[in-house]
Amino acid sequence: MSGEDAPAQQQNAEEQKQQQQQQETKTPAESPKTESKPDPPPSGASTEAAAADTDTPAPAEEKAPEEDTFSYRALVLTGYGGYDKVKLQVKKGKPALKSGEVMVRVKMCGLNFADLMARQGLYDRLPSPPVTPGMECSGIIEAVGEDVTDRKVGDKVLVLNRSGMWQEVVVVATTHTFLIPEGMSFEEAAALPVNYITAYLMLFDFGHLRPNQSVLIHMAAGGVGIAATQLCKTVNDVTLFGTASASKHEVIGQGGVTHPIDYRTRDYVEEIRKISPKGLDIVLDPLGGSDTHKGYNLLKPMGKLISYGAANMLAGQKKNLFAVAKTWYQQFSVHTLSLIQGNRSVCGFHLGYLDSETELIAQAMAAVVDLQGKIKPRIDSTYHLEQVGDAMRRMQERNNIGKIILTTEPMKEEEKKEEAKKDEEKKKDDKKKDDKKKEDKKKDDAKKEEKKEEKKKEEAKKDDKKAEEKKEEAKKEEN
Amino acid sequence: MSGEDAPAQQQNAEEQKQQQQQQETKTPAESPKTESKPDPPPSGASTEAAAADTDTPAPAEEKAPEEDTFSYRALVLTGYGGYDKVKLQVKKGKPALKSGEVMVRVKMCGLNFADLMARQGLYDRLPSPPVTPGMECSGIIEAVGEDVTDRKVGDKVLVLNRSGMWQEVVVVATTHTFLIPEGMSFEEAAALPVNYITAYLMLFDFGHLRPNQSVLIHMAAGGVGIAATQLCKTVNDVTLFGTASASKHEVIGQGGVTHPIDYRTRDYVEEIRKISPKGLDIVLDPLGGSDTHKGYNLLKPMGKLISYGAANMLAGQKKNLFAVAKTWYQQFSVHTLSLIQGNRSVCGFHLGYLDSETELIAQAMAAVVDLQGKIKPRIDSTYHLEQVGDAMRRMQERNNIGKIILTTEPMKEEEKKEEAKKDEEKKKDDKKKDDKKKEDKKKDDAKKEEKKEEKKKEEAKKDDKKAEEKKEEAKKEEN
Repeated sequence: MSGEDAPAQQQNAEEQKQQQQQQETKTPAESPKTESKPDPPPSGASTEAAAADTDTPAPAEEKAPEEDTFSYRALVLTGYGGYDKVKLQVKKGKPALKSGEVMVRVKMCGLNFADLMARQGLYDRLPSPPVTPGMECSGIIEAVGEDVTDRKVGDKVLVLNRSGMWQEVVVVATTHTFLIPEGMSFEEAAALPVNYITAYLMLFDFGHLRPNQSVLIHMAAGGVGIAATQLCKTVNDVTLFGTASASKHEVIGQGGVTHPIDYRTRDYVEEIRKISPKGLDIVLDPLGGSDTHKGYNLLKPMGKLISYGAANMLAGQKKNLFAVAKTWYQQFSVHTLSLIQGNRSVCGFHLGYLDSETELIAQAMAAVVDLQGKIKPRIDSTYHLEQVGDAMRRMQERNNIGKIILTTEPMKEEEKKEEAKKDEEKKKDDKKKDDKKKEDKKKDDAKKEEKKEEKKKEEAKKDDKKAEEKKEEAKKEEN
Repeated sequence: MSGEDAPAQQQNAEEQKQQQQQQETKTPAESPKTESKPDPPPSGASTEAAAADTDTPAPAEEKAPEEDTFSYRALVLTGYGGYDKVKLQVKKGKPALKSGEVMVRVKMCGLNFADLMARQGLYDRLPSPPVTPGMECSGIIEAVGEDVTDRKVGDKVLVLNRSGMWQEVVVVATTHTFLIPEGMSFEEAAALPVNYITAYLMLFDFGHLRPNQSVLIHMAAGGVGIAATQLCKTVNDVTLFGTASASKHEVIGQGGVTHPIDYRTRDYVEEIRKISPKGLDIVLDPLGGSDTHKGYNLLKPMGKLISYGAANMLAGQKKNLFAVAKTWYQQFSVHTLSLIQGNRSVCGFHLGYLDSETELIAQAMAAVVDLQGKIKPRIDSTYHLEQVGDAMRRMQERNNIGKIILTTEPMKEEEKKEEAKKDEEKKKDDKKKDDKKKEDKKKDDAKKEEKKEEKKKEEAKKDDKKAEEKKEEAKKEEN
């Protein structure tokens, strides 16, 4: 475990300057006036916050900084687009605490598919840029607002929020924090809320999973996929079908997937029908588009299809209008009469739209924490805030097995230099890829043109043949 | 309880003749050749059946009849249309028993909404006429086929089947029979399968009903409505909204409906929003059409809408093309993106499409029977087979509170005479109603015509006024 100590603020500011030069981020002076941002609400220097601060035992090695020098690093989505749209910036001024709120010094943040959608402007739950993304983190309570009785300074908590979690300091309603149970690391805690609450509510509330049932999990090596697998294993004799590329089959098989299917080389519908001819009890569908249709048709009587995303919309780093339009066009729509005749259920789930349902979330969180021992988040990799682009790329290209985590621990100097080199290589690589794509397109176009020509010729031949046949028929008739 | 003894066959034949004269049914000679009917499969005189029959202790007062004189009364849907399309006929010949089948001497049959739909040709699970309708009955096992080990002659059973239950003798797979628990009458047993399994699977499988949740039950005084109310009461602190006409409120209130709503005089959506501003956890929707839209919009996050019929299609005795088209046109269709953003579930249920799911049904039936004591079917009324028209009319006009039952016990002579009188009166009444409708329509048309005229006159006046105004304006401009 890393990052147990809060980073020293002054050191951060230093690093920030260097880092800006490397990553072309804005200078601190240009950092967005967070005044207008809804989440978390900051302020200049409120007396409550100051009072709370002096009460706080300094968790850092150095003394707590003065209010006016209070600053912290934050990832900021500066506009919709590619990986480089998320920049590391420094926010200044100590956030004020309202009644019922707490301030958390963040250790680890979780990366989710919704964050990728958000960056492309495909997720309407994130306020407009500039805004700090991130739905979950773990850390230590640094200050508590008025009327907060269930949390105290020093508590280790995990946090679930609509947005704003990818920064070193967050202010949230205490109802959005949950105590980290004994024996759970900050990484694991940051990996828990979104994936496990999502999987839990889908499987046990909408899905009503019971022993001897069968479940299909797409992207079985992803965060929700692994959470769902572990939760299915808490029920006896559940048959699990999981799609993932072949290289991940060993891991997901060990994790509990009964039948891993390589969706890149096999028709998963066919594979499932071979093993389970009657179909499935539950289909978890994060893909959308044509895969939702396939999932629906795989349902047994009393089966449930649970749609929780449209990952098919993500094709590349930037918004791909064709992929979006195709996924949207193919998006599943169902008539109640079809549901009645099939005795089927179609459900939609997205945790991002449940942020006001604090009681529901708290119950699900408690249920998930109660299962500790039976479940354990699998961490794929941990990136520094500076490396958020790489982290996003790894998820989007589906190279991860388990959860991708961002740590607020600052990068070391040597790491940074190496990173800079890698960045250069990546840029070259991206350019090569782009060039190759263009070339391939040209070749494709040429081929298509050739084919068209051939087709035309063939059709012309057919027409000639027909004409001849007609002539012959006419002759016959004459005879 | 009536009809404990099996009716004597010869007496039945006698009665049948008289009854035909009253109800204008076909003569027995014209009774449909059941050879071609899929369900139940009869035969001329198979030796197995004969053997089984001689083994059977004669349950009737008279001696068991010879095979070739074996006959039984059956209700037969002779074609799609009004109440008179279901006729009482006599079937001849003893049904053969295949391996795994049992023959049941029927005591009581249940009436369901699907039977009304079927009569109008709106239910595709009933084979084409001529066919015996009916999805449930109770009775006593009279013979068992080969390989039947779990049932014996004399067992009291309830039966759930796709169709064919409205007759004195039925032959079904043993898996479609369930032992009637101690202390349950034949009426109650016949009222149990369709309504309670439907309500059970909807509330607990699709709905995942839990304490402190809220449920809307339409047609709360109907068979499924009362079953659902009783099942909801087995869970702590469930808030129940139930729609029914005002005259039924006392009964459904006593039964457990927290907030009865008269849908004829109130906007139920408004009433529910007043009490439960956030909406509902579960909506059971047997109506279809625009009510499904209303139900969907009433759902809380994680709410479930369960559609299980299209009662709105039934408007009158015969198929009403306008009602069908309107219900069909307004039928609900939903897009997964809407479900995702609302965190909602839409389910379809119909027991008629689950007839091959014997394990699922058996589990639900066992669960329902286990709740005996907490649940108890409410019998609205019991009709003789001869009165099936009245029974269907009572259900269709929604005059029942609870289940409508058909008994196979033959009608007494005096009753029949009274019935004949009533029939005459009803016919007159129907004619009066028709005449009144026609008259009302004439009056309405006349009124509409008047209104149109008035409107025209008013518009003419307005036009005059406008013309004058224009003139005045023109004058002003001149000045």
